[in-house]
Amino acid sequence: LAQICTIAVDVMSGDHGPRVCVPAALAMLREHEHLQLVLVGAADDIAARVRADGCEDHPHLSIHPATQVVAMDEPPREALRRKKDSSLRQSIELVKAGRAAACVSAGNTGALMAMAHFVLKPLPGVERPAIVSALPSTAGHTHMLDLGANTVCTAGQLFQFGVMGAVVASGQAVLERPRVGLLNIGEEDIKGHETVRDAHRRFAASGLNYIGFVEGDDIFSGEVDVVVTDGFTGNVALKTIEGTARMIGAVMREEFTRGAARKLMAAAARPALMALKQRLDPRQYNGASMVGLNGIVIKSHGGADQTAFAYAIRTAAREAARGVPARIVEELRREDQALEQQVMQAES
Amino acid sequence: LAQICTIAVDVMSGDHGPRVCVPAALAMLREHEHLQLVLVGAADDIAARVRADGCEDHPHLSIHPATQVVAMDEPPREALRRKKDSSLRQSIELVKAGRAAACVSAGNTGALMAMAHFVLKPLPGVERPAIVSALPSTAGHTHMLDLGANTVCTAGQLFQFGVMGAVVASGQAVLERPRVGLLNIGEEDIKGHETVRDAHRRFAASGLNYIGFVEGDDIFSGEVDVVVTDGFTGNVALKTIEGTARMIGAVMREEFTRGAARKLMAAAARPALMALKQRLDPRQYNGASMVGLNGIVIKSHGGADQTAFAYAIRTAAREAARGVPARIVEELRREDQALEQQVMQAES
Repeated sequence: LAQICTIAVDVMSGDHGPRVCVPAALAMLREHEHLQLVLVGAADDIAARVRADGCEDHPHLSIHPATQVVAMDEPPREALRRKKDSSLRQSIELVKAGRAAACVSAGNTGALMAMAHFVLKPLPGVERPAIVSALPSTAGHTHMLDLGANTVCTAGQLFQFGVMGAVVASGQAVLERPRVGLLNIGEEDIKGHETVRDAHRRFAASGLNYIGFVEGDDIFSGEVDVVVTDGFTGNVALKTIEGTARMIGAVMREEFTRGAARKLMAAAARPALMALKQRLDPRQYNGASMVGLNGIVIKSHGGADQTAFAYAIRTAAREAARGVPARIVEELRREDQALEQQVMQAES
Repeated sequence: LAQICTIAVDVMSGDHGPRVCVPAALAMLREHEHLQLVLVGAADDIAARVRADGCEDHPHLSIHPATQVVAMDEPPREALRRKKDSSLRQSIELVKAGRAAACVSAGNTGALMAMAHFVLKPLPGVERPAIVSALPSTAGHTHMLDLGANTVCTAGQLFQFGVMGAVVASGQAVLERPRVGLLNIGEEDIKGHETVRDAHRRFAASGLNYIGFVEGDDIFSGEVDVVVTDGFTGNVALKTIEGTARMIGAVMREEFTRGAARKLMAAAARPALMALKQRLDPRQYNGASMVGLNGIVIKSHGGADQTAFAYAIRTAAREAARGVPARIVEELRREDQALEQQVMQAES
């Protein structure tokens, strides 16, 4: 981060609320001198926690009061109507007002999506905002979208996801031309449904670094940087990854603690086990981005601990520094113009 | 297996052909006295391998000649037209003729599906055959379908998958009323698309032990026995599971062999690592079933080794012993009648 960047942090939401979110924010503040944070929520509670941490005079810290909290199971429609002074809503409003470059919340996904959509509106040219996140791969990480915002998508929407995903992926690493792949199934005779085939043609005609269809196991291969799919398939894939990793972890724990001899071995293997745990730590992938909106909104896992929530704040700072929304508008415009030219050339 | 059951084994297909398939079949024959196998393919080659293994006089072994082999990348349409004397086609024909209760092949999925569909035809009442397989879970295993036969499915088809999956799951364990779940995404406001919601209502009104919507990570939770989804989502989920497990395995190998000290620790932890490997060994889940056809067809992974291919033969024998196709017809009929009654009661 080269210049000061202000992030609004909803510290009231998630399973743990201010107990976890405030210390995570303060830790980030101490580590990153260019970061400026606005903690949004119950002002007295937050101020007390900030004081307890000795940060009350930090020049890059302010508190923005919000009297309500959106419950984790609150229907988004209700939250939209009744929770105008919630920490979640106010964090988004700070972005809308230009007082923060991005916001972060561990709140209820549906409510966050609904409020962000309502307050910030989609970017010009964007049909549907989508949820994108980084996932671990054997070589660094892969971005996947949509992870659940749109259960049914058109080919054109899938294409836009690809453009947006490429902007996010190139913003998070040195990748100048991220490799974009379209998720499909590999059985020979049955290469996907019509929407996927139509999207494939649109991608192939684009200026993106499109590598074609990819399958579920390619997400981790290191051979693709952006995996595009509809929100139904993407959400199922995401949860399936989490479930598989959790199951393997559970079986591992069982096998490494079965009896005294095994426990001793596990102690000996501790360096390798710890390194393994660290490399696959899902917390470092916390922070999904709602791309395609006129502002940056980062969704943290509801159950995020301090380390995980700090990662979500980092994701927000990165996207803000790269100016992701403006770049999305630019890239979509470029693609539209290129398509128009192709059509005109074909006609002449 | 209480009574003799005959399985036709295509020993020519897959990445390894007779070199792996013949020994796998002979090993199964030695282990299971009620198994009767017909090895289908190049008669001379098979006979030589059987002799080399000392099995030429085995009373439960016969060879059925087939002069052609379907290539792993052969278009299904071509295979259907030109490979009538292939080991794959002839294995299915043996089932059709009633000379085998089931067949097994490691061949090209598209060709196997096309030929099985053409030769055996769907069971009365079945709209679409589907691919089902067992997957590991923390408590035994879970069946999932469709894994790729139907990219787009109606609610009624999803419901039939549930009925068929329940028959297969109750056939493979002591589960008398397998718990059936419908795969969906969990974001609060956006509980899936219309097809899934329609299927949900059909399931809820059925005689199945339906537990409602499940998410990707529930596949492994041990709280559901049959996970129902369309073939697109199912295939993506399956490949994602494989990819996740492979990535974790690769990272584990790296971390346990990083330097001499780590290698020594890995040697000490060998019992735990071996137990882990065995519990998660994907080979024991080899053998996907094409359910809904007038006959039992089991698809082995193309790359299956001897152990994995033997598991596929075992799956075939189990389904044959349980009479899966007849039970599917019966259960579908029962569900149709129950639905009719409900409609009549609602009208009167």
